[in-house]
Amino acid sequence: MTQPRPIVTLLTDFGEQDDYVGAMKGVILSIAPDAHIVDISHQVAPQNILQAASILDNVYRYYPAHTVHVVVVDPGVGSARQPIALQTARGTFVAPDNGVLTPVRAKEQGWKAIILNKPDYWLPSPSNTFHGRDIFSPVAAHLASGVAFEKLGQTVSDIVALTMPSLTIAAKTIKGEVTRIDSFGNALTNIAPLRWVDDHTLEFTGGDVPVRIDARTTRVVCGWHTVDGIHQNYSQVVAGQALAVVGSSSELEIAVSQGNASEQFAIQASSPVTLRFD
Amino acid sequence: MTQPRPIVTLLTDFGEQDDYVGAMKGVILSIAPDAHIVDISHQVAPQNILQAASILDNVYRYYPAHTVHVVVVDPGVGSARQPIALQTARGTFVAPDNGVLTPVRAKEQGWKAIILNKPDYWLPSPSNTFHGRDIFSPVAAHLASGVAFEKLGQTVSDIVALTMPSLTIAAKTIKGEVTRIDSFGNALTNIAPLRWVDDHTLEFTGGDVPVRIDARTTRVVCGWHTVDGIHQNYSQVVAGQALAVVGSSSELEIAVSQGNASEQFAIQASSPVTLRFD
Amino acid sequence: MTQPRPIVTLLTDFGEQDDYVGAMKGVILSIAPDAHIVDISHQVAPQNILQAASILDNVYRYYPAHTVHVVVVDPGVGSARQPIALQTARGTFVAPDNGVLTPVRAKEQGWKAIILNKPDYWLPSPSNTFHGRDIFSPVAAHLASGVAFEKLGQTVSDIVALTMPSLTIAAKTIKGEVTRIDSFGNALTNIAPLRWVDDHTLEFTGGDVPVRIDARTTRVVCGWHTVDGIHQNYSQVVAGQALAVVGSSSELEIAVSQGNASEQFAIQASSPVTLRFD
Repeated sequence: MTQPRPIVTLLTDFGEQDDYVGAMKGVILSIAPDAHIVDISHQVAPQNILQAASILDNVYRYYPAHTVHVVVVDPGVGSARQPIALQTARGTFVAPDNGVLTPVRAKEQGWKAIILNKPDYWLPSPSNTFHGRDIFSPVAAHLASGVAFEKLGQTVSDIVALTMPSLTIAAKTIKGEVTRIDSFGNALTNIAPLRWVDDHTLEFTGGDVPVRIDARTTRVVCGWHTVDGIHQNYSQVVAGQALAVVGSSSELEIAVSQGNASEQFAIQASSPVTLRFD
Repeated sequence: MTQPRPIVTLLTDFGEQDDYVGAMKGVILSIAPDAHIVDISHQVAPQNILQAASILDNVYRYYPAHTVHVVVVDPGVGSARQPIALQTARGTFVAPDNGVLTPVRAKEQGWKAIILNKPDYWLPSPSNTFHGRDIFSPVAAHLASGVAFEKLGQTVSDIVALTMPSLTIAAKTIKGEVTRIDSFGNALTNIAPLRWVDDHTLEFTGGDVPVRIDARTTRVVCGWHTVDGIHQNYSQVVAGQALAVVGSSSELEIAVSQGNASEQFAIQASSPVTLRFD
Repeated sequence: MTQPRPIVTLLTDFGEQDDYVGAMKGVILSIAPDAHIVDISHQVAPQNILQAASILDNVYRYYPAHTVHVVVVDPGVGSARQPIALQTARGTFVAPDNGVLTPVRAKEQGWKAIILNKPDYWLPSPSNTFHGRDIFSPVAAHLASGVAFEKLGQTVSDIVALTMPSLTIAAKTIKGEVTRIDSFGNALTNIAPLRWVDDHTLEFTGGDVPVRIDARTTRVVCGWHTVDGIHQNYSQVVAGQALAVVGSSSELEIAVSQGNASEQFAIQASSPVTLRFD
């Protein structure tokens, strides 16, 4: 059996105007010249660990299992926070130990974690300000090239966990919050997962027991605004009208058809959202 | 003969700050792990089908014929609009049937089109809000991997056509409009194609008969502004001065040397432009 | 020995919203279908040759030696400025002869330069406004595919040099300037290279003789602002506080922990910076 081509993905808050991403790609290709480097995003808001965790959570399962994902949102670079790697059945992850891998660890059984403490697999004389280039990229390239996971560091029993946005489930309401505003201005929430059972009925399975919801009579409350019903797609209302839909990661999403819900309703990440069904 | 490496390009309005593009790339690499994924742009203005059509029109012919181009500007996602694929001698295209392939279909003889109605080639349980990930990406990956075009859907005799900006050719004038403002602020127009015959003479071949134009005496009128002559390159005038040139896609272009014509002249997509020669 | 896979990097001021980058990638893949195309950045400020030179300087050495780097920041496109290529032991570079390769030429011994004057290796009928697509990309692809450097043009003894920001070294001060503001708002300077000798001592080797600096007592003056000491990483001060660090390219950097130094202090590229140690 031939070895599949190595794949290394990059998710950072470095932006694309500087030399940072280009330097990381060079380091990876110098160690793993056959690697296919894939940009997930470099536009995470600076130091926003939660946003990076959410983006990673939504994409990693779509990649082949041999993919190595590098996540560098790292306000603590050079401090006592540790560089780590996490191995799962659905990909290997290299990141600072600051909670950015919380959703992956929560979803993947049988993970293994190591602290990256083997400088042989880093660039020589790593800087204190750019571990993305000096530690994470070379480690990812070695992993992608087939170096055994255990060789790169010392096994640890757990990694830092991030407090995720809270979800409160009651008899006739589910209370959550906006997790991110996407580039269309759509408000993505942590009220998930939702699944269409038939044309009018949704099933919410994020609690202890599944809840059935009538999509026609439910209401979504976000700040001063209430949206009636949950629609199947953006085209079911006229352009400019607000609606709720089931978003692409099975989450409740508040949108404006061909418009920008975040601007129109002044809603942001952390804005409270309530789903009422009675 | 060995198979060339599959190439899949992406052109979307998804921006680069979210998980959308990263999810598409993962889907493609899971089906076609050897594919080279190429970003054309993810910064099409939200829902701007005409802008995406124009960008695609300017790039596809530069790619190898075995390339699969995925175009996702899709305000009608989840509605009755169909997902389609178009096969031509110069590339295969996967997109919503909303007119975004109009210029390609117009230029390529002997095209074949299908409606993508074979869920075996999609992700299971596709969402209503993200066909880019659930339908277009897997179909493109299967095409890039060598699945026969006809297997992916049902042949159709035509696809949706977009109304393109109008061009009016008279004895001493050609009237068109600004199609796009590029990132330099240059105004690209639909007065095309123009070709240099000698240092002072241009030939316009966008009408029924070729027209010869003296580049020194022609005038370009856009809104309140008139630019004298058509220059060969931006450096022929001093920095800050306006000029007209033949742009990189053989179109009439209004620019400011080392400046921003769109801001300086308040011209936008759809602004009328007249080329006068007499 | 097998040939390594060709690598072509792109560094431009084209932005990512237009067709320009996509067209260049298509041209490269049509000539070198196995090339791995790597985006360094397309967000160089329009016509900012110095910024592109600085980014290139910080990344090229991290790439394999067989990499071909294409740099297109080209306000003089179509004028008398020449297209050139530069061959070094650490990569081959294709660019307009406008000074953008100045730092590379200064650092790499034994370089060879050619004027690209062999149209056989260009696209047919090159435009006057987009040599990135019509000359630089095809030349880079031919180089990446193994065409001998000398075949692509005529040897020249020197290339255009850019005046780099000045550095003045005195007994107790080093005066330089801000070279770039990065996407975090950190101010990168030309006071470099600096290296940690021990936890409290830095060595500056940018002058004729090495200078030792006590990191605890030195002061960094930029405009009206003075920052005390040079820290090892951003986390050594509280969020919102200004600090000086040794940046990732061994340069003096002025930052605000989890904040934006450029906005907070109104400092820009070219702002004067003084390092005082006494």
